[in-house]
Amino acid sequence: MEEKRMEALGYHAEERRKAEFNLEEMKIVWAGSRRIYEISDRMARLVASDPVFRKDNRTQLTRKDLFKDTLRKAAHAWNRIIELRLSEEEANMLRSYVDQPAFTDLHWGMFIPAIKGQGTIEQHEKWLPMAYKMQIIGCYAQTELGHGSNVQGLETTATFDPQTDEFDIHSPTLTSSKWWPGGLGKVSTHAVVYARLITDGQDHGVHGFIVQLRSLDDHLPLPGITVGDIGMKYGSGAYNSMDNGLLRFDHVRIPRNQMLMRVSQVTREGKFVQSDVPRQLVYGTMVYVRQTIVSDASRALARAVCIATRYSAVRRQFGSQNGAPETQVIDYKTQQSRLFPLLASAYAFRFVGEWLKWLYTDVTQRLQANDFSTLPEAHACTAGLKSMTTSVTADGIEECRKLCGGHGYLANSGLPELFAVFLPTSQDWLKPSVILEAFEARAVRMSIACSKRVGNFSNPEDGKSFIPRLRELSFLYYLFAELSPDLLLVATAHCQLIVVSKFIEKLQQDIPGKGVKRQLEILCNVYALNLLHKYLGDFVSTGCITPKQGALANEQLRLLYSQVRPNAIALVDAFSYTDHYLGSVLGCYDGNVYQKLYQEAWKDPLNETVVPDGYLEYIQPILKQHIRTARL
Amino acid sequence: MEEKRMEALGYHAEERRKAEFNLEEMKIVWAGSRRIYEISDRMARLVASDPVFRKDNRTQLTRKDLFKDTLRKAAHAWNRIIELRLSEEEANMLRSYVDQPAFTDLHWGMFIPAIKGQGTIEQHEKWLPMAYKMQIIGCYAQTELGHGSNVQGLETTATFDPQTDEFDIHSPTLTSSKWWPGGLGKVSTHAVVYARLITDGQDHGVHGFIVQLRSLDDHLPLPGITVGDIGMKYGSGAYNSMDNGLLRFDHVRIPRNQMLMRVSQVTREGKFVQSDVPRQLVYGTMVYVRQTIVSDASRALARAVCIATRYSAVRRQFGSQNGAPETQVIDYKTQQSRLFPLLASAYAFRFVGEWLKWLYTDVTQRLQANDFSTLPEAHACTAGLKSMTTSVTADGIEECRKLCGGHGYLANSGLPELFAVFLPTSQDWLKPSVILEAFEARAVRMSIACSKRVGNFSNPEDGKSFIPRLRELSFLYYLFAELSPDLLLVATAHCQLIVVSKFIEKLQQDIPGKGVKRQLEILCNVYALNLLHKYLGDFVSTGCITPKQGALANEQLRLLYSQVRPNAIALVDAFSYTDHYLGSVLGCYDGNVYQKLYQEAWKDPLNETVVPDGYLEYIQPILKQHIRTARL
Repeated sequence: MEEKRMEALGYHAEERRKAEFNLEEMKIVWAGSRRIYEISDRMARLVASDPVFRKDNRTQLTRKDLFKDTLRKAAHAWNRIIELRLSEEEANMLRSYVDQPAFTDLHWGMFIPAIKGQGTIEQHEKWLPMAYKMQIIGCYAQTELGHGSNVQGLETTATFDPQTDEFDIHSPTLTSSKWWPGGLGKVSTHAVVYARLITDGQDHGVHGFIVQLRSLDDHLPLPGITVGDIGMKYGSGAYNSMDNGLLRFDHVRIPRNQMLMRVSQVTREGKFVQSDVPRQLVYGTMVYVRQTIVSDASRALARAVCIATRYSAVRRQFGSQNGAPETQVIDYKTQQSRLFPLLASAYAFRFVGEWLKWLYTDVTQRLQANDFSTLPEAHACTAGLKSMTTSVTADGIEECRKLCGGHGYLANSGLPELFAVFLPTSQDWLKPSVILEAFEARAVRMSIACSKRVGNFSNPEDGKSFIPRLRELSFLYYLFAELSPDLLLVATAHCQLIVVSKFIEKLQQDIPGKGVKRQLEILCNVYALNLLHKYLGDFVSTGCITPKQGALANEQLRLLYSQVRPNAIALVDAFSYTDHYLGSVLGCYDGNVYQKLYQEAWKDPLNETVVPDGYLEYIQPILKQHIRTARL
Repeated sequence: MEEKRMEALGYHAEERRKAEFNLEEMKIVWAGSRRIYEISDRMARLVASDPVFRKDNRTQLTRKDLFKDTLRKAAHAWNRIIELRLSEEEANMLRSYVDQPAFTDLHWGMFIPAIKGQGTIEQHEKWLPMAYKMQIIGCYAQTELGHGSNVQGLETTATFDPQTDEFDIHSPTLTSSKWWPGGLGKVSTHAVVYARLITDGQDHGVHGFIVQLRSLDDHLPLPGITVGDIGMKYGSGAYNSMDNGLLRFDHVRIPRNQMLMRVSQVTREGKFVQSDVPRQLVYGTMVYVRQTIVSDASRALARAVCIATRYSAVRRQFGSQNGAPETQVIDYKTQQSRLFPLLASAYAFRFVGEWLKWLYTDVTQRLQANDFSTLPEAHACTAGLKSMTTSVTADGIEECRKLCGGHGYLANSGLPELFAVFLPTSQDWLKPSVILEAFEARAVRMSIACSKRVGNFSNPEDGKSFIPRLRELSFLYYLFAELSPDLLLVATAHCQLIVVSKFIEKLQQDIPGKGVKRQLEILCNVYALNLLHKYLGDFVSTGCITPKQGALANEQLRLLYSQVRPNAIALVDAFSYTDHYLGSVLGCYDGNVYQKLYQEAWKDPLNETVVPDGYLEYIQPILKQHIRTARL
């Protein structure tokens, strides 16, 4: 009976009725503007309604079939983009909603931006039109088997030969093999390859080169090029749609004008020249790439939170009295104290991502006017925020998965409906100024404490024991190694301060729609007070707050959870994710989870036959005690 | 040159030479005794050397082929167990080294123990001989689609029919479908099914029943039984070797004597009788199952730590000076501060697991003498430790994966060789008595603080606002719901106290072998001081230690990391894991990581053809601008 009623109404109808804010306005805040919301919504529907983009059968495919399916989708997306004459913004959104990592991500997201950022005007004119039409497909070949994020450690060489006016691209060791670049394994015809520039026996460090990898006639690798796929990736099945590749060069020749020469040049005579274009320009590209990473992180976290929140409202466990339904998992305080901070983080990261986008535009405009003053700050901010948001997102997705598993929370009892009973305690903890002050004080004091430790090191009295070593080794190197955990903590504190302050800034804007601003204020407080709770040790030990204040903040946090509770489902609805995009039975919009799980299960190939393949060879002999005679 | 030399010597030779303890003795401490070490080592080699147990090609298999491979391995293992007349202990170890989840795990680990623990002597005599010979294969059908760990919420019914002296087993709703049991989907012939016992219209709660599911002739499901596999599992590919199943009953009849009747019985007349065997006996089985889970968790964590530690000694990144090799990742303090606490946790969990095993034996002996005094404590301890160790292990494995990715640590510089320079600070933090006292004080004070909050709730003055609700709802329920996050923290503090104190107890034993005890002392301190660091807020806010003491403990922790460093590789070698068992190129014993990665990559099916399948249909039309006319 209950089941039937729920199916008709949708499992979340009651949840949505309880929401205390205007959902449509929240969707616009989430998207950034009404215009972006409308484009995004249109692209999402376009993808979700097209049978070619179907992805619910993806886990059933072998690696080869999955890869072929990816190729098919990429080609179909390109076809639609051309037919519908989509703008670049629209095309990017469409591709992101296809939601299957593909060579096109690297072509549009790395290959083209690298040429734009590091190429000369002549190089733009030669390469970009072909790349925009996808007459060539490119990837970004930086990392090597033995070298990850340390670009200066790369081993691939590009040696200039003045005799022929060419570079000789070569992989001198096993560890110099290019390794991991997406789209490289089976698809790309070209790559931007990062290699050490050698002229006249001198090493000028790492530069980018455009190298053709495969014939445009038959797609076979060109002479001297060894290229292939690196094989199955661990964990997530979806990423196996990408042909992450390996690449080796055996003295491959390219014309001199395929070195990306915006910042440095090699002349016809083989002279290495630094142009007057400042090297910092390269950081502009990095700021761009990082802000897209922050924005991807917020989207991924939002997706996981959406699934976990919806499922937590469907799932019931324990707490049944007199035959009434069991308690919704989302009503447990333990579940709330894990889920709601992540919900708040998804919003917080969205807003800080929006600010970074603005920062990138601002930096770019300044660079064009030769103003480099804000670049170092933007460089540092994006680096820190990229690292923090991706690591919180990775952990947050794991946490969301656990929150769906039902094993993650303590098995004790609860109430069908909860309400706040705490007497008002320190309401001060809800004031943005108080929160901001605490986070600022903590970041500053941690920096000071760290500087003091640096000071101790340079004190000759304390430092006696290692002074002899200093003759051999850089003192700075030593300091970094010893202090790196502290620096990491200081950097984290600083990043959290940025996120909190950007959230607060957002709230100072004019935000229309009933209750929308109020919900965002609550989420902002949840985000900040949860961090205060989690890093209480930092706050207390630097004397920013007293233990008593910490306890009051914690009480306040519990109250806030009760306020988030009735709005939780609507807050994730505001992400406007289609069921297709979510690709999750647990997080489906209508909440009809169990029926779908049950129907899906029968589709597994293992269910095609009633008696499994292998029964006669491996099960029957056991049961019949014929195991010794059977051939295994 | 360097590459060649390393290949010949093994990459870790230098690391192993640096170790300051007797490896063989440590292996024995790790195993628990020389006898267990020898058996374990023999079984590990037996599996690793047998080509049928090969598992390096596993990720390449389709679900169906992986499943068939699992059946093959299970049959072969059984064959070897019989041929070699292995003891139960040996057989269990052999199966665990096969390291591929299979129906046999459930048959031996759940089906047989359930019958042993909950069946009568007559039931033992009837069912166990068949099960021991694997003439029947059983699984453990407890969880349902809508019901996880809350056994009392199960919906499947077993209604007694006095007319025929049978139970009628039935699935009344969709959510009552059995869901997840391993081995159920395609293999098991029988199951212990948990269902609500109904006699004469009365519900007597959940009991276990032995139900035959499939014909022993043709393996087809018996009438009234719907059974199948639940489909691909998210994430880890390996677990798809298991046929986790779904199961529905349409009024399936079983004889009365197939209810497990050790604790409660139904008479021929349909009368429900509680025997004089105390219900607590059931908890004995739970203590057993939980201690095996703790032991599995310690093994899984050790495995991840082994891989991450070895790879961290191979991987080099940044910090190269004058052309010397880059710094080993394991020499970075940031890497150490993340890796070494996990290494210490692996050892800590191993020892607490050993203690739990002893506890189980002790409880069992007492139960046989009708002494139930220690059961509640054992019940609570194992529940808490199971939950804590599995959650730390899950997070720890994730963390290890990140530590291998090289993205997890701050990109700054370091030294080729590091050494401790800190002046002695608070050496007190290395004294077991000091550590234990801090952990005890914290656990006690957190309990007291929590009790005080309970006290506040029962104060009529404070409680006014919710007193009316109390008429409808249990006050205790309410308290649990409101306090559950606090209770969770108190429980965590208590569990950590147990782990620390068991580690310290272990150290008070006589431990032979040069340096072995010393290393374990260091690890014990790392484990404790890292927790103190992580939960500094708890320790400081309950007044157990001052912020200053916390800072001193932290300094001490850094010193300890330097002491672990030279022994890290040998400490994971002490786990005695074969390369086969580890199944990880990154963690292989000889450290020849890159060569192996490179060789493996070429084995991917995608590399069989140079031009990928799909090129003509999906890539060429793009490149040739024929996209509009191509059929997609």
